[in-house]
Amino acid sequence: MSILAVGTVAFDSIDTPFGSADRVLGGSASYLTLAARHFCEDVRLVGVVGGDFPDEYRRTLADGGVDLEGLEVEEDGETFFWHGEYHYDMNERDTLDTQLNVLASFEPDLPGSYLDSDIVCLGNLEPGIQRDVLDQVDDPEFVMADTMNYWIENTPDSLRTTLSQVDCFVINDAEARELADEPNLVRAASLIRDMGPETLIIKKGEHGALLFTDHSVFSAPAYPLDDIQDPTGAGDAFAGGLAGHLYQSGGLDPEALRRGVIYGSVMASFVVQRYGPDKLLDLTRTDITERARSFRELAAIPTLVPLDKQLA
Amino acid sequence: MSILAVGTVAFDSIDTPFGSADRVLGGSASYLTLAARHFCEDVRLVGVVGGDFPDEYRRTLADGGVDLEGLEVEEDGETFFWHGEYHYDMNERDTLDTQLNVLASFEPDLPGSYLDSDIVCLGNLEPGIQRDVLDQVDDPEFVMADTMNYWIENTPDSLRTTLSQVDCFVINDAEARELADEPNLVRAASLIRDMGPETLIIKKGEHGALLFTDHSVFSAPAYPLDDIQDPTGAGDAFAGGLAGHLYQSGGLDPEALRRGVIYGSVMASFVVQRYGPDKLLDLTRTDITERARSFRELAAIPTLVPLDKQLA
Repeated sequence: MSILAVGTVAFDSIDTPFGSADRVLGGSASYLTLAARHFCEDVRLVGVVGGDFPDEYRRTLADGGVDLEGLEVEEDGETFFWHGEYHYDMNERDTLDTQLNVLASFEPDLPGSYLDSDIVCLGNLEPGIQRDVLDQVDDPEFVMADTMNYWIENTPDSLRTTLSQVDCFVINDAEARELADEPNLVRAASLIRDMGPETLIIKKGEHGALLFTDHSVFSAPAYPLDDIQDPTGAGDAFAGGLAGHLYQSGGLDPEALRRGVIYGSVMASFVVQRYGPDKLLDLTRTDITERARSFRELAAIPTLVPLDKQLA
Repeated sequence: MSILAVGTVAFDSIDTPFGSADRVLGGSASYLTLAARHFCEDVRLVGVVGGDFPDEYRRTLADGGVDLEGLEVEEDGETFFWHGEYHYDMNERDTLDTQLNVLASFEPDLPGSYLDSDIVCLGNLEPGIQRDVLDQVDDPEFVMADTMNYWIENTPDSLRTTLSQVDCFVINDAEARELADEPNLVRAASLIRDMGPETLIIKKGEHGALLFTDHSVFSAPAYPLDDIQDPTGAGDAFAGGLAGHLYQSGGLDPEALRRGVIYGSVMASFVVQRYGPDKLLDLTRTDITERARSFRELAAIPTLVPLDKQLA
């Protein structure tokens, strides 16, 4: 059993009102695979970097146990670069610079050893590239995808085609409203599920996440942290924890999905406590288990007595 | 046992992108008392209206079972008027007009029958008026208070004095950040609790609420609704449901507070489904009990297996 993730591998420069980081290891595939690796021995990365990608960052991914056979190196090109700035409340950010570089001409060609992957995670990329990857995998059991406002606005038809092939779609609340052209999140969720994905997860940053399935709606809290340093990558680590737990549970029943959202939230909560994905390397399974337990305590509603029996 | 609530009784005009309402019954005391009345037989209102306040609106409150002995009528004055406009996503609003009218010279003088009130709810008002009310009550068991950005900015010292006399403070997330001058909500909560209130509840609208006590943090979801018509009064109905449940449980232990936050969220979820407080009059105890059960299902995290035991 294995997890394949395609996405960006990047240099991130990050400014917050409280500090900054310059050209740290970033990208959706980096965060996703390093998070998933805590749950699954066989995590495969598909992406591209330039000749400027340092050995140190390659070692970070390799030390995290990620299979890098599918990480192409364009020796003459430069690695994807993103520069973002977070606002005072750390919930909103502006993109100051994006340099696609080697990503502009990326045509993924999967190694033969990747073709039997069971869970496929399509990180935020041009929807056509997401399908290029998916089409090469033999017979995946479960397909997850992310996207961003840029593809919603500029390649809506291609995005719809990708969505029709996806089991679980994971986006944030602003993207959900924009994609569905509907301000009410519950109605937006229904409209998006009609586009294909049986399962929809809407990430709300510091407000947690909502899981929509045929069976129910699940509202997961976010972990209350007093030391948020850098929210970059939290959504990708979320996807990694979710995919990792689904791999482990071996089933896609409603309870596994709920637990998966919690493990995703756990991984995201660790990521925001430090710049870059380093924190994901230091984590132990005990750390993860303990924080998941804290989520249960955080959200626990005591047994309710029916109101009819309460009034004196 | 009894609940006393002081706050505004108002005409509200409400514009949303999807409809509007003109001069409906509003005000913090109206929503709070009508919500609390479902949990408590003896709910007392302190407030002031003008000679223009119609019999119809007085009957709405009386039919809801609210004790109106403490509702002063200034025959020569006009009732407090608020005009607000909600944005497309219904989460943010602008105040278009506020006419204090009779509220500008309000000096609450409690009826003798109110002096033995057990739970006192200080709705959003000038902090000095909140204390005027509190000082008249003999020996309240539990004091809750709300406020708004206007008092945080214009009467900070008076607000601090009120806060030092309050057991439970209920505000929204933007107000918490402003009052504490701290963008991180967890740190803001700690700073606000240092100002006096042992219990702090931060309301986050469509994102639920956070309960901070010595013991723990509790994250309550918001009910996912596809028919939000008018968010006005939701925060006050929340306070009413919370006060009502605390009255019923007869104790202030952590579990009662958690359940209180859920019953508050239940009452808020009903209010937003219609303009004005009318929906609160039609509710049955079965409606309330069933929605409270739905909250438990919405937030239920299945038992987690320790990660150490999961890996194949």
